[in-house]
Amino acid sequence: MNRKLCLFIAMSLDGFIAKTDDDISFLNQVELEGEDYGYSEFINTVDTVILGRKTYDKVLSMGVESLYGSRQVFVITRTPRPDSGKTVFFSGKLTDLVLSLKNQPGQNIYCDGGAETISHLLQENLIDEMTVSVIPVLLGDGIRLFGYKFPEQKLQLVKSQSFEKGLVQLHYVKI
Amino acid sequence: MNRKLCLFIAMSLDGFIAKTDDDISFLNQVELEGEDYGYSEFINTVDTVILGRKTYDKVLSMGVESLYGSRQVFVITRTPRPDSGKTVFFSGKLTDLVLSLKNQPGQNIYCDGGAETISHLLQENLIDEMTVSVIPVLLGDGIRLFGYKFPEQKLQLVKSQSFEKGLVQLHYVKI
Repeated sequence: MNRKLCLFIAMSLDGFIAKTDDDISFLNQVELEGEDYGYSEFINTVDTVILGRKTYDKVLSMGVESLYGSRQVFVITRTPRPDSGKTVFFSGKLTDLVLSLKNQPGQNIYCDGGAETISHLLQENLIDEMTVSVIPVLLGDGIRLFGYKFPEQKLQLVKSQSFEKGLVQLHYVKI
Repeated sequence: MNRKLCLFIAMSLDGFIAKTDDDISFLNQVELEGEDYGYSEFINTVDTVILGRKTYDKVLSMGVESLYGSRQVFVITRTPRPDSGKTVFFSGKLTDLVLSLKNQPGQNIYCDGGAETISHLLQENLIDEMTVSVIPVLLGDGIRLFGYKFPEQKLQLVKSQSFEKGLVQLHYVKI
């Protein structure tokens, strides 16, 4: 299986990906003209996106329609909906979906959140690579990237890079 | 006030400083002959140590008697005990202790944990510098470095450094 399931996500130093009200304005402090922190390079390695239904709705509510371009998108939901273009609403077992995708040829698979979907993937040890950007702030409360229990897992640091705005990007692969 | 209150602490990528049973064996994976990850340089900037009673007892139980050398040590406890050499058992208000120390001349002050004491300091916005070493592991459960609510606080990244064993050390100052 050479097709990898990847995270590419930002968190505060204290491990939050959003405040309790889903506010992600803490990301604004690292915005810099012409700096995308490797996102376009990363997304070009990906042809399939998995995300939770709540995150999907949030992305839509932000008016972002074509965030994922022409990529295949799977929205993990308990409530089936009809497919919409390249977007499939998947209400089966997440593990089955991921294993099935990994067994098909293709580029990497990107899980774009949310915390609940990521935690299910961690519980099943399905995440192969993680790029975590640490934002220089302590939020003190909010939605944790790692808020649920899952089995211990060793990682290998592939790269660490710091940026002008104080963001540190950590890139790990599963051992 | 030039005397700073500093953290120098390691956590897993998912933000744990120990497993639920206080097990810190995840630190072993970054042990390397002759590499102290800047600890001796750091501790030489410090003449006073603050730590919680549970952490103090744990340090003692590990047979470490002179971890802090000749430094002044304050153990934060609800139960007063007689002083022991340079170790003072402090059962007053932590904020008062820290403000009083900061107003006295001296080197920096090191808070060596635990999570409860650190959280009290964060709640009062008393921590001036943080050196956080991120260990390349997901523990999945345990004692969180940032497990309690506290007010949001922006940080400035001073330095980020990665090491052979995959540890990434992040050094922040309070803005």
